Amino acid sequence: MAYNVAPLSRLIEQFEKLPGIGRKTAQRLAFYVLNMPKEDAKAFSEAIIEAHQKIHHCSICQNLTDEELCPVCRNPARDRKVICVVENPRDVIAIEKTREYKGTYHVLHGAISPLDGIGPEQLKIKELLERIKKDGADEIIMATNATVEGEATAMYISKLIKPLNILVTRLAYGIPVGGDLEYADEVTLRRALEGRSLL
Amino acid sequence: MAYNVAPLSRLIEQFEKLPGIGRKTAQRLAFYVLNMPKEDAKAFSEAIIEAHQKIHHCSICQNLTDEELCPVCRNPARDRKVICVVENPRDVIAIEKTREYKGTYHVLHGAISPLDGIGPEQLKIKELLERIKKDGADEIIMATNATVEGEATAMYISKLIKPLNILVTRLAYGIPVGGDLEYADEVTLRRALEGRSLL
Repeated sequence: MAYNVAPLSRLIEQFEKLPGIGRKTAQRLAFYVLNMPKEDAKAFSEAIIEAHQKIHHCSICQNLTDEELCPVCRNPARDRKVICVVENPRDVIAIEKTREYKGTYHVLHGAISPLDGIGPEQLKIKELLERIKKDGADEIIMATNATVEGEATAMYISKLIKPLNILVTRLAYGIPVGGDLEYADEVTLRRALEGRSLL
Repeated sequence: MAYNVAPLSRLIEQFEKLPGIGRKTAQRLAFYVLNMPKEDAKAFSEAIIEAHQKIHHCSICQNLTDEELCPVCRNPARDRKVICVVENPRDVIAIEKTREYKGTYHVLHGAISPLDGIGPEQLKIKELLERIKKDGADEIIMATNATVEGEATAMYISKLIKPLNILVTRLAYGIPVGGDLEYADEVTLRRALEGRSLL
């Protein structure tokens, strides 16, 4: 291509590396950043570095935090005896949004996926077991994704925890609220039938 | 929300400012950047600052460049007497991809849009006229967008240039190649009929 300005190409390439961002969107974003006021671009650039420098894993639940403990583990009102095990920090945000859950979390940072070379030792499973042994727990809620990898991870962890005589539960499967029966896949529908409750 | 880690929130907010990026996507991108190796995050951060520091407008065509002249204006093989007027640098990239055009460009950096408070004086129209008066031109191809604003801008500029006795042309309107007649809007179809050519 005749039109090649190195600093611009580099910026476009950086955006192109992001998930779900193709060439065209990367161009659009790069031009947008280029047209920002200088201070805004500086703030953007610094936010990337700052996040990398300050954010690390909570020493209890492995969620992301910029302090020793994450906001949930810092909160004395949260029930430390109930631990919800999720794949990643975004799942914590999703569950927090329900304003329903008063327990704590444990973030695995992934799911077991042999095809991607991710085994149990790459996940924060060791930390979960140590935490349970040290602080005890009444219930472990397996809230990994309803995918093959998430299921496998939930099964794997529950097998490790059950000998400790701790209640291990799994999120309910069923029709999404507001969802149309006719668009639900047959596996979901079967699970929804199995899990039916009294009205 | 109970889950609030300041450096992470700041990074999410930065991504949310970008066009077409909503809250969820901003979260996804921020977590992705956070999971990058430190060097990659540094490269991303620096690309933003570098682009802002090094990129400015080409002194001839107003396109973006990190040198005195943009790659097109630097190229002696390009015909300086034919100037294609476009709204923004992305349009240059799009036309360059055709590998058909051998002339030069002039980037207006926008289109006349009274509703957005953009008048002719905010665009690089003065620079275009000065350039034509100084270097001469055989043909000005108006390649602004086929929107109300793009049309108005093309009309406005052509009125300024026509007294100079220079050929002013406009990109052809018609059915997009590969496009289905039944999905073409009536205005496009009318223009395609008007512009029909001998087979």
